[in-house]
Amino acid sequence: MLPGIGIFCSGSQSSTLVKVLVPLIREKGFRVDALWSRSLKEAEEIAKQLQINFHTNKIDDVLLRKEVDMVFVICPPHLHAEISVKALGIGKHVVCDNMGLNQKEALKMVRASQYYPALISLVNHSLRFLPAFIHMKRALTDDVIGNVSLVDVRIQMGSLFSNKFDWMCDASMGGGALHLIGSHVIDLITFLIGKRAIRVHGILRTYTKQTPTVNGIRQISAPDFCTFQMELAGGVLVTVSIHSHIVPSSTFIQEIMVCGNDGHLVVRGGDLFLWKHQLEKPVKEEAIYVDVQDLHTSTMDSWLPKPYVKGLCKMIGALKEAFAQKESSWVKEPVQSAATFEDGLYVQAVIEAIKASSESRTWKKVEIWTDSPNHEKEGIRFARMTSM
Amino acid sequence: MLPGIGIFCSGSQSSTLVKVLVPLIREKGFRVDALWSRSLKEAEEIAKQLQINFHTNKIDDVLLRKEVDMVFVICPPHLHAEISVKALGIGKHVVCDNMGLNQKEALKMVRASQYYPALISLVNHSLRFLPAFIHMKRALTDDVIGNVSLVDVRIQMGSLFSNKFDWMCDASMGGGALHLIGSHVIDLITFLIGKRAIRVHGILRTYTKQTPTVNGIRQISAPDFCTFQMELAGGVLVTVSIHSHIVPSSTFIQEIMVCGNDGHLVVRGGDLFLWKHQLEKPVKEEAIYVDVQDLHTSTMDSWLPKPYVKGLCKMIGALKEAFAQKESSWVKEPVQSAATFEDGLYVQAVIEAIKASSESRTWKKVEIWTDSPNHEKEGIRFARMTSM
Repeated sequence: MLPGIGIFCSGSQSSTLVKVLVPLIREKGFRVDALWSRSLKEAEEIAKQLQINFHTNKIDDVLLRKEVDMVFVICPPHLHAEISVKALGIGKHVVCDNMGLNQKEALKMVRASQYYPALISLVNHSLRFLPAFIHMKRALTDDVIGNVSLVDVRIQMGSLFSNKFDWMCDASMGGGALHLIGSHVIDLITFLIGKRAIRVHGILRTYTKQTPTVNGIRQISAPDFCTFQMELAGGVLVTVSIHSHIVPSSTFIQEIMVCGNDGHLVVRGGDLFLWKHQLEKPVKEEAIYVDVQDLHTSTMDSWLPKPYVKGLCKMIGALKEAFAQKESSWVKEPVQSAATFEDGLYVQAVIEAIKASSESRTWKKVEIWTDSPNHEKEGIRFARMTSM
Repeated sequence: MLPGIGIFCSGSQSSTLVKVLVPLIREKGFRVDALWSRSLKEAEEIAKQLQINFHTNKIDDVLLRKEVDMVFVICPPHLHAEISVKALGIGKHVVCDNMGLNQKEALKMVRASQYYPALISLVNHSLRFLPAFIHMKRALTDDVIGNVSLVDVRIQMGSLFSNKFDWMCDASMGGGALHLIGSHVIDLITFLIGKRAIRVHGILRTYTKQTPTVNGIRQISAPDFCTFQMELAGGVLVTVSIHSHIVPSSTFIQEIMVCGNDGHLVVRGGDLFLWKHQLEKPVKEEAIYVDVQDLHTSTMDSWLPKPYVKGLCKMIGALKEAFAQKESSWVKEPVQSAATFEDGLYVQAVIEAIKASSESRTWKKVEIWTDSPNHEKEGIRFARMTSM
């Protein structure tokens, strides 16, 4: 029997995601037993629409429910750490959308996940489960293109901002292109190449400061454009650009190219192509994997990019398999390739280094927090910032 | 009567270009009267193939010919300054492919052009004459997309290296993607936006160190990949990436996007598109200029990108018009939009700043050389380097 699921969801972005997530979860055979939202009104509305029997605005009311064995935390980033740590403490498996606002919070989540190793604790970096990337990783492992030297990522998508001012408009609340999309890219690179970034350089810009509906005293501070470069351990260079300010909201173009000595691999949307250098032969693009499978769940009316939703669908499938194996430990094949909280902490460290680089116009070393006293001081600073 | 033309051409890249250039020149009604190449054998071969009556390996033999009124200097960069300065001194108009190896040489060329203002002295930055960019500049002047905030340039092209080791493989001789392609992009941005770069950041890489035919003791040092960012006066950000190491040599993809408050303009190949933000209407791509005119001259067997050849064709047309007006001064409408030697000096300054940035991993201010004593010292250093 698959575990029952509780969902933490708040705000317009979350409610877009939850409408995609709940049908996917049910499709795989899980039950959705409880829904939390910040306001009772919002909780009631979503629960009614998605036919979830129980809703509440109290976190504990979800976590203490016996039939809830796993929670999906898809609320705004400032609640990630609080809810995830509490959930693990009560003995629930956790899939969290991201790793909170900063490394201080991410580190709390990592500690909790290390303290309860028998519980699932995953970050929703769903691109790892997209078949095109799984095939790409396999091709890289099989040395199809030789030594990798360069990874180039280019994303063009519609605006991330909804029609009212919320956390997504606010850089300090984890909004914007780097946190929302960049985090997935940073994680994906490590998944594909098997190396982490040593140092980074980046430029963030907020080109859309107001919209027709967000035009009061408050201005948008979250970046809608970012370009950054990462040097991975071993020397691979990664260049990334994310534009979310120029194309209509229905557009999503994602191209990830990995170049090696002997050719290169490109994932466009959900498809994988290979260009192989061959002596005295013209180089040709060869389709290695073409994504034909369409999603059952309609995602037409959401801003969520298709590859991320497809990955999410596969990730939930992997969770189902993991539970179906009925072994005592969940750490087995189906979800082994998922992003752990440690992976999420690393991504937070890279994001912080990119932000610092953009402010100082210098390359920054990626420094992953540990429990050293130096960082405790920093922690206090962050705690103050977030309590403001 | 149009002036007779002398051509300085040496090496495999030059001889590719000369085979495109000479037919274009003749098509517009100019005579090609003389050809110089470093070796008499090379000169003889090219002259025979292109039916040029006079060939030589002595620079003065071209410059002192009475029927030669204008020279095209398309030989390797280390000869640009010497030949251009000498030509202007003898009273010949000059169109030079680029501005030598460094700012020291570029400055000599600028001084010569300032000393002989009645003579034409242009850099072959031919993209300025491509109709799509002329229309783009007009749209920007007409404020079609509002305040410009970002320019994004992406170029993917085949290898720049020929099948033997020459200056193109050598970074210190002006080879590689930044000098060859980047220089055109840097110039184009200033032409379009009307602003110069204040500071830059860049990464250069040589991914192809050997090829099937260049594989001896000498390794390729010229970068085949570069990514750089420029901050223009007034705050516009420019991001550029040039890949010349991944796609087959017949490929040339160039996309230049200018983003403003109210929409964006994109030139793809030779076509211009507009995306206009409109309230409560879906954004749509609208073709503003579609390039249908095909080149008479076959460029199929050359690595030269089509937009650059088309621009060159238009530039020669503008030169013809300028001469046809028969006025005493050549500085008039048809060639007024061409790149002067001062523009070329600026481009050299940006290239040097990008190289320095790539070496030091820091942002660099763009410092344009003048005749100050500080730079004289630098000049000595460069002179030593180039005489090695």
